[in-house]
Amino acid sequence: MSLLESIDDPSRIKELDNAQLEELCAELREYIITCCAENPGHIGASLGAVEIAVAIHKVFDTPNDKVVWDVGHQAYAHKILTGRREAFRQNRKYHGISGFPRRAESPYDAFGTGHSSTSISAALGLAVAAQLEGKHEHVIAVIGDGAMTGGLAFEGLNNAGSLNADILVILNDNQISIDKNIGALHNYLLKVVTDRRYNKLKKSIWDRLGAGRLRSWIQKMVKNTKRSLNRTGVETLSLFDSLGFRYFGPVDGNDIGTMTYMLERLKGIPGPKLLHVVTTKGKGYAPAEEDQTVWHAPGTFDVETGKRTGKKSEVAKFQEVFGTTLLDLARQDGRIVGITPAMATGCSMDILQKEMPGRVFDVGIAEQHAVTFSAGLAAGGMLPFCNIYSSFAQRAFDNVIHDVALQNLKVILCLDRGGLVGEDGATHHGLFDMAAFRTVPNLTVCAPLDEAQLRDMMYSATQPGYGPTVIRYPRGYGNGVEWRNRPFGFIKPGTAVKLHEGKGVALLSIGAIGAEGTKAVRRIEEEKGVSVLHFDMRFLKPVDEAALAEACSRASHIITLEDGVKAGGLYGTVAEFIASRGASCKLTGLGVPDRFVEQGTPAELRAECGYDAESVYRELLKEIF
Amino acid sequence: MSLLESIDDPSRIKELDNAQLEELCAELREYIITCCAENPGHIGASLGAVEIAVAIHKVFDTPNDKVVWDVGHQAYAHKILTGRREAFRQNRKYHGISGFPRRAESPYDAFGTGHSSTSISAALGLAVAAQLEGKHEHVIAVIGDGAMTGGLAFEGLNNAGSLNADILVILNDNQISIDKNIGALHNYLLKVVTDRRYNKLKKSIWDRLGAGRLRSWIQKMVKNTKRSLNRTGVETLSLFDSLGFRYFGPVDGNDIGTMTYMLERLKGIPGPKLLHVVTTKGKGYAPAEEDQTVWHAPGTFDVETGKRTGKKSEVAKFQEVFGTTLLDLARQDGRIVGITPAMATGCSMDILQKEMPGRVFDVGIAEQHAVTFSAGLAAGGMLPFCNIYSSFAQRAFDNVIHDVALQNLKVILCLDRGGLVGEDGATHHGLFDMAAFRTVPNLTVCAPLDEAQLRDMMYSATQPGYGPTVIRYPRGYGNGVEWRNRPFGFIKPGTAVKLHEGKGVALLSIGAIGAEGTKAVRRIEEEKGVSVLHFDMRFLKPVDEAALAEACSRASHIITLEDGVKAGGLYGTVAEFIASRGASCKLTGLGVPDRFVEQGTPAELRAECGYDAESVYRELLKEIF
Repeated sequence: MSLLESIDDPSRIKELDNAQLEELCAELREYIITCCAENPGHIGASLGAVEIAVAIHKVFDTPNDKVVWDVGHQAYAHKILTGRREAFRQNRKYHGISGFPRRAESPYDAFGTGHSSTSISAALGLAVAAQLEGKHEHVIAVIGDGAMTGGLAFEGLNNAGSLNADILVILNDNQISIDKNIGALHNYLLKVVTDRRYNKLKKSIWDRLGAGRLRSWIQKMVKNTKRSLNRTGVETLSLFDSLGFRYFGPVDGNDIGTMTYMLERLKGIPGPKLLHVVTTKGKGYAPAEEDQTVWHAPGTFDVETGKRTGKKSEVAKFQEVFGTTLLDLARQDGRIVGITPAMATGCSMDILQKEMPGRVFDVGIAEQHAVTFSAGLAAGGMLPFCNIYSSFAQRAFDNVIHDVALQNLKVILCLDRGGLVGEDGATHHGLFDMAAFRTVPNLTVCAPLDEAQLRDMMYSATQPGYGPTVIRYPRGYGNGVEWRNRPFGFIKPGTAVKLHEGKGVALLSIGAIGAEGTKAVRRIEEEKGVSVLHFDMRFLKPVDEAALAEACSRASHIITLEDGVKAGGLYGTVAEFIASRGASCKLTGLGVPDRFVEQGTPAELRAECGYDAESVYRELLKEIF
Repeated sequence: MSLLESIDDPSRIKELDNAQLEELCAELREYIITCCAENPGHIGASLGAVEIAVAIHKVFDTPNDKVVWDVGHQAYAHKILTGRREAFRQNRKYHGISGFPRRAESPYDAFGTGHSSTSISAALGLAVAAQLEGKHEHVIAVIGDGAMTGGLAFEGLNNAGSLNADILVILNDNQISIDKNIGALHNYLLKVVTDRRYNKLKKSIWDRLGAGRLRSWIQKMVKNTKRSLNRTGVETLSLFDSLGFRYFGPVDGNDIGTMTYMLERLKGIPGPKLLHVVTTKGKGYAPAEEDQTVWHAPGTFDVETGKRTGKKSEVAKFQEVFGTTLLDLARQDGRIVGITPAMATGCSMDILQKEMPGRVFDVGIAEQHAVTFSAGLAAGGMLPFCNIYSSFAQRAFDNVIHDVALQNLKVILCLDRGGLVGEDGATHHGLFDMAAFRTVPNLTVCAPLDEAQLRDMMYSATQPGYGPTVIRYPRGYGNGVEWRNRPFGFIKPGTAVKLHEGKGVALLSIGAIGAEGTKAVRRIEEEKGVSVLHFDMRFLKPVDEAALAEACSRASHIITLEDGVKAGGLYGTVAEFIASRGASCKLTGLGVPDRFVEQGTPAELRAECGYDAESVYRELLKEIF
């Protein structure tokens, strides 16, 4: 690893010739694979983008020239090349470096990312700022074809194309997000890449490139595609030209020679430019190239065999419960359909998709559309389950208010990855959902304690008595309770469950974090002989006022426990109840405080935020004695 | 008006011949103009879309066939033709009909609208639902070229183009939103409409149309444009073809014969289709055609002279204060830039735009991009003021969290139209902003009591001590306090102002609604001789805990007053303070309850929601005696 070890910042890269750059790319791949085998990460996207990262740092004057990595988990090579080679061993770890670009971490991270489709807007802002300040800077946005389907990317293109700012968008087309990409844009890009006539018209560019390797690659692409081309027109202006961008490509984004050649030439061209590069997700590691969905973020694995070494649990994940239950419900009710913005596998909607492909709609990375499309389906008589990761559902806040709740259309919005998600860190924690959606009229907002409750909540929401409903649950494993072989149970909206009888102090929890509360309550009972009143609230909205009244009358001190922001959440809801009644209870909130939380294991982060079982125990103890 | 008076539902329209349809369009225009002269409305867009509405109801079998009107304020003709001719006289009035399509109002309103760019997603949902149910329905989305720039519209196109659903998108291209449209898409559409070569290629379509009038119209369009065409390519596939839509057009959307002809033909073509029609905003009323921005929603006017009859106030609007202050600040600080998503006139950023056009960025209808672009500008060293209407800023919730707050980038987000906006109703009230943004770390959230405070808050936010800041203020007139001829005053974050000394009962208000509180407090003092403690909180975040502690210690009853949702807002914030301290105060919240509020004057709606001066007075009285 001599070459990679010599690179502490990108200046050294500029001295390397093409052969050395190829060697550097190979070493980077080996380093990423080795590190990620032990310390899991987003390996697939980063392996595909190695040459893009090397070429950018070779050709441009970073960090004066600025690069914005859309989503950002493809930026491992960039991180390793910009002073974080050793730190990368602590990638995504508690107190380690973030798995995404982060301004606070390095001057080379021009703009923090994590959510999809932000890069063009951010890069345009950087480019316009430089222009206003009279600086000559190059600004580059690297964006995947998946992220390009997000409406924000289109808004950025539309604005950039008219402002005539010096911005280079590198469209990293690997034909996959996490699941296989879909949508008209995908079809369009595929057509561009494979259309013989198109390539023929672009022959002059190929000839100037002079790369035999590239030509043979194109021939292979054309041969490999089974798509028949039935367009009669000859296309000379691309989609991106229509939007004011000069379009270049497609070229082989995994060929370092081509990449540096193209970037060198584009550097001199002013105005908005788009370079369409085709890469292979997982490039250079056979197992990752073969199953790109699994190898998006495979967990630990054995480098030699490609065997994934993560231990299997007997306990089901909430995701499996969601997917299985959705299928079971869909079998019983023909109105039920599933909608996912590019997370069919992640949220386990693929279980329904495999059995009833016509009733699952993967709309691509497009959270706003997912919700408004669902509202349209509901208006047309369907019963849509729309599943979005909590943190990404922030994108659809308006659509939930304006298209779903205002019209009281029965969309069942399942928010996966609610709460602290762990290693993906600040951009991915789903913390604001409950506090935000609680303020929206007509919505029911609930969160299951365990697998059985998730299943019952999903069933209940399909029944009369429920309008538009938000069901919010965490990433990962449940408590291991039986959920599969039992009949659906109806849960009346706004009803809590008393988990433990007690008085003096009351614990009110919502969602799966309640299990940490149960541990603490049991320990207090066992160690101190004190019984704490514990309600699993289940519903944030409508809240069970009888349960709150009982807690206020039996306890002088109430503790709320939630896996989300305290302000305005369960803590805020209970505070409003207490203060509006002038009750003489003192309230303590356990949950996420008013600051952003970085990456780590969920257990580490819950301890840091003070709401793991140990923290609940200590808080209870403080009040009792 | 004999023809129009005979139409109580669209069935009668199907019997009319072309000459009668022309007559009907003329009558509709006259009726819309007459009604809106007395009862203000969105006249410009609706005049432009008369033929679209008539042609749809002539050709399609509504309400079985479904039409979704994007934004919806262009749907007056549709409303009048579908059983609401007389009701239209009460358009936008309290207990009258909504100014926007509304499912609860009519079966002909297939999907409620108000916010931009939702129609394609919603129509696709309706179309897919019909498909799944085995129904043969036509679904039509009518969307303006302004709304088409919203990312959500692109997400809808991208999904529809690949699902191959039977959906017709009518792109109503009037080259203007409220202000002149901008952006690359606009340039593209203009080029399509004006390119001779393009028209030549499409000659066969024109010939089939056989409308001499249409041909002459195109010639006029081509002649009128000053844009020189320097593209060398010949375009045969449009932007929309790239996205899987069959593109038809452009045709004259104000020619009823052309419109019915085109829709009849398109009715038989399966799959996703886009019909590009060109219309004139304000069509048929000379003053409205001449100044389209003013006549978007002109207020009352004299039909004969076109003179606007609304009375001018001596008092400035908050919008004028914003615009003037932004200019004053920009003169002092070269880093300051303004960003608006298509509301330069509405929010008065045009004041800065006129003097420093290079420092204002109207990004089109693209709220998400507006915020992330602002974050990019801030990362590049600028000091951006991004102004968005509160209700539309719901679209940018994620961008504020993920791109601004998480990176602690100093973007000053000015939320215009915060609170109940009045006649635009449920879709446009800005009620969720304060409760939602309060939960986001790193943000300062404040709301000015009056014009001077808005000016000082804008200045203060530019100073050290402030990070990313939300300044939220209402639509319309201030209190008439002096604001122009005074030096900027720095307001320390998190500091309240005591407006009135008192004890026993405390009133805590935030924002301009505090003026209603002041009226009530004065009246109590005059009529009952009781002094109420009144704090203008100014900041929701950080909240002034010293002021809250003083209120708790001096009053046994606290009333909060806010122009937004109570849950999680100031009410929620104060409740958390009281409950967490176990204070023995009883809290009453005055603000918007947990339901959607329809249209009316702000005074009517505040009274309905129980937080006008009279309501505050009554609430104070209740607690005192």
